Amino acid sequence: MSSPYAFIARENRQKVLKNLGSANVGWAYLKGFETTVRKWTDTELPFRQESNFFYLTGANEPDLHLLLNLRTGKSHLFVPRHSPDHALWCGPSLTPSEAVAQYGVDEAFYSDELSGVLKQEDAVVHVVDGTDLSTLSGAKSDASNLQTAITEARVIKSEGELELMRKAAKASGEAHIALMKAVRPGEGNESTLQALFEYECFRRGGRYQAYTPIVAGAHRGAILHYINNNAPIPTDPRQLLLVDAACEVDCYAADITRTYPVGGKYEGDWKTVYHIVLDMQKAVLSQMKAGVEWENMHRLAEKVAGEGLTKAGLLQGSLEDLLANHIPALFFPHGLGHLIGLDVHDCGGYPAGVERINEPGIRYLRMRRKLEVGMVVTVEPGLYFVPGILDEGLADPKKAKYINREVLERFRRDVGGVRIEDDVVVEANGIENLTGWVPKEIEDVERIMAT
Amino acid sequence: MSSPYAFIARENRQKVLKNLGSANVGWAYLKGFETTVRKWTDTELPFRQESNFFYLTGANEPDLHLLLNLRTGKSHLFVPRHSPDHALWCGPSLTPSEAVAQYGVDEAFYSDELSGVLKQEDAVVHVVDGTDLSTLSGAKSDASNLQTAITEARVIKSEGELELMRKAAKASGEAHIALMKAVRPGEGNESTLQALFEYECFRRGGRYQAYTPIVAGAHRGAILHYINNNAPIPTDPRQLLLVDAACEVDCYAADITRTYPVGGKYEGDWKTVYHIVLDMQKAVLSQMKAGVEWENMHRLAEKVAGEGLTKAGLLQGSLEDLLANHIPALFFPHGLGHLIGLDVHDCGGYPAGVERINEPGIRYLRMRRKLEVGMVVTVEPGLYFVPGILDEGLADPKKAKYINREVLERFRRDVGGVRIEDDVVVEANGIENLTGWVPKEIEDVERIMAT
Repeated sequence: MSSPYAFIARENRQKVLKNLGSANVGWAYLKGFETTVRKWTDTELPFRQESNFFYLTGANEPDLHLLLNLRTGKSHLFVPRHSPDHALWCGPSLTPSEAVAQYGVDEAFYSDELSGVLKQEDAVVHVVDGTDLSTLSGAKSDASNLQTAITEARVIKSEGELELMRKAAKASGEAHIALMKAVRPGEGNESTLQALFEYECFRRGGRYQAYTPIVAGAHRGAILHYINNNAPIPTDPRQLLLVDAACEVDCYAADITRTYPVGGKYEGDWKTVYHIVLDMQKAVLSQMKAGVEWENMHRLAEKVAGEGLTKAGLLQGSLEDLLANHIPALFFPHGLGHLIGLDVHDCGGYPAGVERINEPGIRYLRMRRKLEVGMVVTVEPGLYFVPGILDEGLADPKKAKYINREVLERFRRDVGGVRIEDDVVVEANGIENLTGWVPKEIEDVERIMAT
Repeated sequence: MSSPYAFIARENRQKVLKNLGSANVGWAYLKGFETTVRKWTDTELPFRQESNFFYLTGANEPDLHLLLNLRTGKSHLFVPRHSPDHALWCGPSLTPSEAVAQYGVDEAFYSDELSGVLKQEDAVVHVVDGTDLSTLSGAKSDASNLQTAITEARVIKSEGELELMRKAAKASGEAHIALMKAVRPGEGNESTLQALFEYECFRRGGRYQAYTPIVAGAHRGAILHYINNNAPIPTDPRQLLLVDAACEVDCYAADITRTYPVGGKYEGDWKTVYHIVLDMQKAVLSQMKAGVEWENMHRLAEKVAGEGLTKAGLLQGSLEDLLANHIPALFFPHGLGHLIGLDVHDCGGYPAGVERINEPGIRYLRMRRKLEVGMVVTVEPGLYFVPGILDEGLADPKKAKYINREVLERFRRDVGGVRIEDDVVVEANGIENLTGWVPKEIEDVERIMAT
């Protein structure tokens, strides 16, 4: 039975061969992940293939090796030769001929035949940094080209890959909707909602979460990487729940955040903050297309935040001064978004030689490059009332003068944080939003939550 | 807020200090697990503490160290000193004084103070094998005593530990019952049932499965370590579903197997096999108490299997001959059960110098020791029709003469495997079965499945 990924993987191998360009002699070698156990025990951890290996083979099972012959372009997959005892415990093993049929590689062998195949060409073996070279029988290896060739291929998604990303987005988005319907003020715990979220993903094919879910009620929404998820759901219906969670389908990730009031109706200062974040996101989504510099989108989100916070009475002074003094970054202290694909924070955000911008907020931006057709990025602006950051800002005379203390105190007393996040494919003249159908307009969320 | 485990951990530390006996000078050092990420990515994996470290501290968070002063008996916990930036991402950090209050240790410090505390006593530092010694500033270490002292303490569970194991058993057992009620012939997939099982555990406090669940329909029940869980539920209502799954609660594991017909009624040869396995388990449970050699319980299960398979017409010859020729092991090829606690296959099954018995089936027994009050062991007999094992048996004239080929062919055509597994506390005159309330009598399972 052929894997539906076989065709995608073949296309991926061709891209990588092309990227290797003048280095196209010898071999490329990748080793798949082995089964891992909890340290000092025999408790096996769930297996998930190394992303580069999955990209080039589509094979999500342990103990495989791949050799690409750079001269002929041929792919050779190596499968483990198990003892007869293995079948008792784990069932029949994949044979080389089954591997050819299933994964669409040119040839397959048992792992103990690898050195024999390698000897067919006396040439350098290209590897990625950190590769275990023990199976290469002393052949000369070179870690300077392969990772970049794979990374630059992975940055641009093919239509086959996008189809899988739509599936991950669909399962994850439907799980978000299930949570919107399930939440009630004072009922249960963040962890019961996390349990429901993971279940709703899993039963739709998303066995693995793409990252540890964040389910943060009230002020816990201001802890950007809150993963304890162990507090009761707020009793005050106006308090917000921030849910940043999504699953993988066939190793491709989604990454979605929605923030909504536990009582189902946006009110007062909570509604004000939510509206500004929604405006930040919409401004960015409307400007995105191939050719746009990603850091300019972050700057745009900061600008909309500055305008919104001024209108809400939190900030004072000219927008130009606010931005020059990094005042919006006090409330939007993380990056606007990142590449996403086989990894939730996908490779390729900083090509060799590109440095981070050492300024508040934007220093955490995970990508500095021009948008290209086929890139998939998250767009996840947010506003937060983080005590440590705000106190530091208020203590700095150069920043404090832009802040209306009284209004700030009111907001930070009540509001934790808001983030809205979608996964977006870059097109020549705009975008495809993979997750835009998951309710985020105030009236849409309120309608769903009323059902 | 004090951890409910603080009292248990203190008791555990005292046991280990006592076991160290004449070695009670110097220090015992343990390092907790660090946060781990998926290799070559920043995708954080869910954190679960190293079991020895949890046993002695009750602390289930990353980057901690423990020093026990063997002379004074005092415990010193070390917590990470985080940068101010850390609070933005992860919220407030545990301070040393909070650590003392929460975990009930005698003193707590920041990790960078560890070498200072260590210098208070110029003596050997006892560690477990494989410990990262980098924080010990060159102090002399000794890996010969500590693991055994901890292992022998962990083998006998305290009442506090048993209370946690009852919780894990309860959440897991209720998830099994939910599955019995949910399964329908031809409806859905093994993976949707796995999803439901994990959800039912998680919402009851069992966030982590104690091991990868086995949800095996029909003949997949004969693959002992079947974890693919990706096949459709059988359409034939008589076919069996074998579910071997359970969660951890507060790091303590359960381990439960139930096997039942997808249509809710045991029939024909499936019922016959199920009945023999139930008899095997009941025979063992009725004989277990302190002082009994565990391997004799495995032999007892083999004997009941031999009797039952003979009565069913599969085997022929005297029981003595069947056992001497290891015929029951063709159908019961794994061990009867194992210690369970902080790890599902808990430490201590083979004390130093005790070897495995090199005979079919029993060679996989994970424990060879006399039962003691406070041990918790699984009792998990099973019968399976594994093609490889049966064909090998039939090809061996010394074995084939005990097998009725015609009857065997009928059984192996229809039946995959049956296992029934409970978690049992050893008492002076019998047992407490932590999971016996999860339906396994034929009429009880059928009644639950009819609702």
